[in-house]
Amino acid sequence: MKLDDALDQIAELPDFPEPGVVFRDLTPLFGHPKAFSVVIDALADAVGEVDQLAAVEARGFVLAAAVAYAKGIGVTLVRKAGKLPSVAGRVDYQLEYGTATLELPADAVRTGQRVAIVDDVLATGGTVAATRELLTEAGADVRSVAVVLELAALGGRDKLGDLPLHVLRTV
Amino acid sequence: MKLDDALDQIAELPDFPEPGVVFRDLTPLFGHPKAFSVVIDALADAVGEVDQLAAVEARGFVLAAAVAYAKGIGVTLVRKAGKLPSVAGRVDYQLEYGTATLELPADAVRTGQRVAIVDDVLATGGTVAATRELLTEAGADVRSVAVVLELAALGGRDKLGDLPLHVLRTV
Repeated sequence: MKLDDALDQIAELPDFPEPGVVFRDLTPLFGHPKAFSVVIDALADAVGEVDQLAAVEARGFVLAAAVAYAKGIGVTLVRKAGKLPSVAGRVDYQLEYGTATLELPADAVRTGQRVAIVDDVLATGGTVAATRELLTEAGADVRSVAVVLELAALGGRDKLGDLPLHVLRTV
Repeated sequence: MKLDDALDQIAELPDFPEPGVVFRDLTPLFGHPKAFSVVIDALADAVGEVDQLAAVEARGFVLAAAVAYAKGIGVTLVRKAGKLPSVAGRVDYQLEYGTATLELPADAVRTGQRVAIVDDVLATGGTVAATRELLTEAGADVRSVAVVLELAALGGRDKLGDLPLHVLRTV
């Protein structure tokens, strides 16, 4: 299966979670054996040589975990507030539909460790920028971001500055 | 690395999320390249031949996604209430620390499809039993459950009846 065919498994659902927003639903892609594996392999290629991946809760967990396994590296879960017993740091940020807090587990990254961030969709870029800040403050060398979809109209790319961004499909 | 050494990466944190509870923290295991891959391979062996995996939010996503990739099959995300644009079904259930609702995405499983449930920890069994109920009502043939840790004192195994349970470590 070609990557474009795999990405065609993503469904578009208008007016969710609120009127005017088109929700990109990766459910059919995750559930499709071939499409899932093609997308994971493409992300694994995209992130290049790193020591660890950072996964953003919750759909980012799915992608980052499989990519980490494919590459033979570990994965750190960047979590929403209150889930972790001890944290290295926390950051508040703007979401597309409100605000939220992310936390990085204590002792999850070592100083100088090369980390790539993996998530499903780059929208406003708030989540990824917050994740990068958390990782950088903890001493990580954040090398790149890899996402399945970029929603170009929301301008998330502008929040990443010079951090390399790998996108499988821009819409 | 042997499976036992990989499982030794799991940390124990007393009195989280409340006094008297020992939290089993898989953060160091997920972050350890060898340990993560050894545990994923062990779970992939354990679930046997199935058509798809069901992942329970949120740490279950990490394990199930990597196991699905390792096996070349898809993964369905069983989600907490309000995250999905359209659902096949929902179920309320008891958690170790309260109550919650799980939802299964619409069209995620087909009638007769062989599914295994993957999660990090079997505690009271409420989450897994609810997930099984959701999948069965949607027509899936739920074949087994695979978890990294079983907290035997909480009796979760009793909620599964005759459903095969694969556990990497019982504590």
